Amino acid sequence: MRAVRLHSYHQDPSIDEIPEPEPIGPLDVIVRIGGAGVCRTDLHIIEGQWAEVQNPDLPYVLGHENAGWVHAVGEGVTNLAVGDTVILHPQPSCGLCLACRAGKDMHCENAFFPGLSNHDGGMAEYLRTTARACVKLDPGTDPADVAALADAGITAYHAVRKALPLLPPGTTAVVQGAGGLGHIGIQCLAALSAARIVVVDRNPDALGLAGKIGATHTVLADGNQVEAVKDLTGGTGAHVVFDYVAEQGAEMDGWNMTAPDGSYFVIGYGGELRIPTLDIISTERNIVGNIVGTYTDLAELMVLAQAGKVTLHTQKYPLDQAVDALHDLDAGRVRGRAILVP
Amino acid sequence: MRAVRLHSYHQDPSIDEIPEPEPIGPLDVIVRIGGAGVCRTDLHIIEGQWAEVQNPDLPYVLGHENAGWVHAVGEGVTNLAVGDTVILHPQPSCGLCLACRAGKDMHCENAFFPGLSNHDGGMAEYLRTTARACVKLDPGTDPADVAALADAGITAYHAVRKALPLLPPGTTAVVQGAGGLGHIGIQCLAALSAARIVVVDRNPDALGLAGKIGATHTVLADGNQVEAVKDLTGGTGAHVVFDYVAEQGAEMDGWNMTAPDGSYFVIGYGGELRIPTLDIISTERNIVGNIVGTYTDLAELMVLAQAGKVTLHTQKYPLDQAVDALHDLDAGRVRGRAILVP
Amino acid sequence: MRAVRLHSYHQDPSIDEIPEPEPIGPLDVIVRIGGAGVCRTDLHIIEGQWAEVQNPDLPYVLGHENAGWVHAVGEGVTNLAVGDTVILHPQPSCGLCLACRAGKDMHCENAFFPGLSNHDGGMAEYLRTTARACVKLDPGTDPADVAALADAGITAYHAVRKALPLLPPGTTAVVQGAGGLGHIGIQCLAALSAARIVVVDRNPDALGLAGKIGATHTVLADGNQVEAVKDLTGGTGAHVVFDYVAEQGAEMDGWNMTAPDGSYFVIGYGGELRIPTLDIISTERNIVGNIVGTYTDLAELMVLAQAGKVTLHTQKYPLDQAVDALHDLDAGRVRGRAILVP
Amino acid sequence: MRAVRLHSYHQDPSIDEIPEPEPIGPLDVIVRIGGAGVCRTDLHIIEGQWAEVQNPDLPYVLGHENAGWVHAVGEGVTNLAVGDTVILHPQPSCGLCLACRAGKDMHCENAFFPGLSNHDGGMAEYLRTTARACVKLDPGTDPADVAALADAGITAYHAVRKALPLLPPGTTAVVQGAGGLGHIGIQCLAALSAARIVVVDRNPDALGLAGKIGATHTVLADGNQVEAVKDLTGGTGAHVVFDYVAEQGAEMDGWNMTAPDGSYFVIGYGGELRIPTLDIISTERNIVGNIVGTYTDLAELMVLAQAGKVTLHTQKYPLDQAVDALHDLDAGRVRGRAILVP
Repeated sequence: MRAVRLHSYHQDPSIDEIPEPEPIGPLDVIVRIGGAGVCRTDLHIIEGQWAEVQNPDLPYVLGHENAGWVHAVGEGVTNLAVGDTVILHPQPSCGLCLACRAGKDMHCENAFFPGLSNHDGGMAEYLRTTARACVKLDPGTDPADVAALADAGITAYHAVRKALPLLPPGTTAVVQGAGGLGHIGIQCLAALSAARIVVVDRNPDALGLAGKIGATHTVLADGNQVEAVKDLTGGTGAHVVFDYVAEQGAEMDGWNMTAPDGSYFVIGYGGELRIPTLDIISTERNIVGNIVGTYTDLAELMVLAQAGKVTLHTQKYPLDQAVDALHDLDAGRVRGRAILVP
Repeated sequence: MRAVRLHSYHQDPSIDEIPEPEPIGPLDVIVRIGGAGVCRTDLHIIEGQWAEVQNPDLPYVLGHENAGWVHAVGEGVTNLAVGDTVILHPQPSCGLCLACRAGKDMHCENAFFPGLSNHDGGMAEYLRTTARACVKLDPGTDPADVAALADAGITAYHAVRKALPLLPPGTTAVVQGAGGLGHIGIQCLAALSAARIVVVDRNPDALGLAGKIGATHTVLADGNQVEAVKDLTGGTGAHVVFDYVAEQGAEMDGWNMTAPDGSYFVIGYGGELRIPTLDIISTERNIVGNIVGTYTDLAELMVLAQAGKVTLHTQKYPLDQAVDALHDLDAGRVRGRAILVP
Repeated sequence: MRAVRLHSYHQDPSIDEIPEPEPIGPLDVIVRIGGAGVCRTDLHIIEGQWAEVQNPDLPYVLGHENAGWVHAVGEGVTNLAVGDTVILHPQPSCGLCLACRAGKDMHCENAFFPGLSNHDGGMAEYLRTTARACVKLDPGTDPADVAALADAGITAYHAVRKALPLLPPGTTAVVQGAGGLGHIGIQCLAALSAARIVVVDRNPDALGLAGKIGATHTVLADGNQVEAVKDLTGGTGAHVVFDYVAEQGAEMDGWNMTAPDGSYFVIGYGGELRIPTLDIISTERNIVGNIVGTYTDLAELMVLAQAGKVTLHTQKYPLDQAVDALHDLDAGRVRGRAILVP
Repeated sequence: MRAVRLHSYHQDPSIDEIPEPEPIGPLDVIVRIGGAGVCRTDLHIIEGQWAEVQNPDLPYVLGHENAGWVHAVGEGVTNLAVGDTVILHPQPSCGLCLACRAGKDMHCENAFFPGLSNHDGGMAEYLRTTARACVKLDPGTDPADVAALADAGITAYHAVRKALPLLPPGTTAVVQGAGGLGHIGIQCLAALSAARIVVVDRNPDALGLAGKIGATHTVLADGNQVEAVKDLTGGTGAHVVFDYVAEQGAEMDGWNMTAPDGSYFVIGYGGELRIPTLDIISTERNIVGNIVGTYTDLAELMVLAQAGKVTLHTQKYPLDQAVDALHDLDAGRVRGRAILVP
């Protein structure tokens, strides 16, 4: 089969012909890929930023945001049949450790991450995953239309879902960053709460879109965004801030926009928080970490997506043009999410 | 191997020589039994009360409360090694349905119940279960000492665990029934809360024991028990009532002992509630169902047990004397829990 | 001032001229009534059904669903100014008992209920309440447009609010009864969740309205409604059933429509549940009582109302025609809620 | 009456004869002081550290940790009678704002803080507070024995109470700092959970005491404390870290001792956290602010105290020797808590 493989860091991957994967363990599932998202993390992998943490043997296949159809299953798989349309949780979990038993897939002791850890990913015709990673979809769903929900979507949703008890009517949520994750987060908030949604971004176009998909207020990040949010909230700040940026100063802005008794949800990364403990206790504010999401999060998000409550802008590329897609992403030429299709 | 098999309803089971079980599915685990609890449900099975619901093919092996050592594992088992000391969740779950993904093993779409459903149980030398049912214990644990926690224990614990957020200091919990389940429930409450614990039972000896294991007050169920609980609670009743009886009128007592804004936890069964909806809404009380418990519940309970915070009275019988144990239980001659040992 | 007073049970109230109320306690507030809802409970009061429970001295003023403008305040009132537009929580609470300190106004040890308990209600030009019962509204709000939210609205909302954690995407909620409370409940559910909303009612017109305000499915209560809900839910029933009827058999229907691990929320009343404890534990279902709501509930509901997410059909009557309004309500001639205006 | 008044910063307060306070507002309560705790914050006030934030008019009376007997009440006070024994929440709240309605006294829009804000404190014979600040005690309680729970106690308890859902059996809690607050926190944890309690302190004597009041493990803060905690927790860290120090590097230790999916509770202050957002999201850890506590927290803590589950070491000084007490505290000569008695 054809696959987009990284042979060495700082070089474009190539389209290689390699053997199709087959089930090894009894819970393995082989998925024929219908859509594979191209993510900024793929650029970081190519640049070697993940080399030390994940240390994969090169060459390996990129692609951690996948959907498609079940092609073959191991002997222990009871929940799927060949031909099922599926979207894939990015991190297959073991189902046996205490984290899995509590539904916290991301904290599984034995999880792996195809396309990121030392396992081939989904920028290929076929991918090996496991039964616990597959969420079944309506048969008629085009995998390419939803693949981006497998990683960007689940991550955006997970944070919103955790924050809902903090966002009854009368509260204010700030979304920092109306890009790939943020614009999904806005739609999830609008579908699941009646909180005011204040969207902060540097890009006026992104704010324009935000207004169409659920933002009740938009704030241009022009240097006065903290004050603008304070003005909108009677001087106190927002009950919850979702920071889909969390770098280049946005992280301190996010903290400073958070009201006393409020919570700052970190989803993006790259920056550094510097906070006196006095500021934390005197206002009783919280900082909440977020990473990807659970299987249940992905299943719930797909319900929203199939009901039309969360939609995505995608730009499709044939698998053979993966390098073009990566270059376009790097150059800021992709509107919405780039998706490779077979 | 030897096994206690039921050949026909209303007749004593017999000790048969049958083949040892072997792993069939990749996640199967064969456990060498170290202790198998004898439960009132076994008497009900023999009496045919479960025949219609579970409809097992006779003869089959009784025993749903088991602990022992791992003897063999299927090819997909990664969390256990031969020789591990384990206690067994009574209901192996699939790990793939939405209930399992949320940690709710008891609501698994594909669960089974060895010794109750159409699967051989643990009153035998060996039992087939699955990797998801095994909780590992300290190697030195004697399985016969803890086996009763596998069913009676998890059920008692599950209800207490769910109720803890309702029982901060200053609140009152009533435990109705200080028998097998109740005396575990009392110990769990004492270990995990500072609530007042009022124990209600018909048996003065059971109340005497209750006082030694955590009850702060005891009430003899002599017909005035509802008034006695009201007197102890300023006329309002208890914030939480755990009803380990729920038959022969205890169910209405339990409801009537529950304070406004309080919750009545049903764990026992056999009786019928008759409640005007006006009584439910005018006081905003809740009725909470409880069934067995989750894998996590059992794992947590074993932490309490291995720390000495929950202890059991047991009376051991050799496997070959299973029928004597069943007769003794039926005749009220067992103190604590009867446990079959190989 | 003019006031609608009940002089003896089973007789129409009369419009009397009585002295205006004045503040007595330091936290008292006198409200000039802008709208007073006419509720089925008023009919029940006139029929003497509440005589024993509340035992008011006759004559007294009816009306427990009120909104208006602050007219005078006691010396300890710091949160309101004369002229403020307010809607009134029906049950002023003390703010000092443990229930109040936990935000549970309905369980206040010292609460009273003007128009129901032995305190004059709001079918009058002025009403005495307290500072803790007043929710401030946008100045331009017409109190007559929102008065019905003060009792019907808060009650419908309270149950929905409590149930939200049980209703993530992919779950099903049943609303039994699409009348006064139910049609507010449907709107609250649609505003705050993405659950499927199945509405059950005997009246096809009510179902037609339900479909316009958020119901995703409607079921005619023609005797097969339990089966119809089972069919819509793959045979299991709904995760949450809101029963705004809970009499004349609806209560058992509601319970029987509830899925394993689900919850049956009782809001209406009049019927009787008869449930074997085995049915409760074998399915681990819950029965949840609901009564009116908290101050916070009312404040949140008013946010939804002022954002246009919850709207009411009202039919206005001059205060002097209160008896006509009561007769129309009794005869089924009121569409939506009858509201008395000064 | 006699009162300990601060006349100017950086100078010892003096014992002055001033008029007794009287009720002004209708909910005011005058308390005859039975015990007033001497807190490190009093030293900070004298040093002027709070001058800018609170800006009190000097001279004013110190003392924010008080218990005693009700001496006089305003006309609106319904929950207290003259002679009642009471402990005082340090921050009287209004009962009218949304924070109060949700039980969050510390976030009251109108709260004040006698002895800290511009209101006379309790190092005197009498103190003016309000009805909402008084928790009634058993009549025989000696206020001097419990006064320290009014501020140190409630603060230690509040954090523990919030964390309990994170600390089921099998989890590990770290307590950093076994001093005034920490040794109360340890006792609360032992009373309300079965979690392992690992106490970290620089002082071997404090660790010795910790072992007697509930610590399951103690770790000397000798520079290797983070590694020691990791060793005790299989390399992962603790599920919850309570940091009663949060200065001089303890704050980064506390964060680094926190396991993935765990929470770092900040209670002390003085230091600064510097944390890359990548560290927050890659491990999905939380940072939780804590400030004093709610009225309900104090009421619950007093239940524990009156049951003997939380005890305090106190060293009593006559009111006239307040300056000695402050000097002793500053010089490290106080064992436990210094309490002024009339």
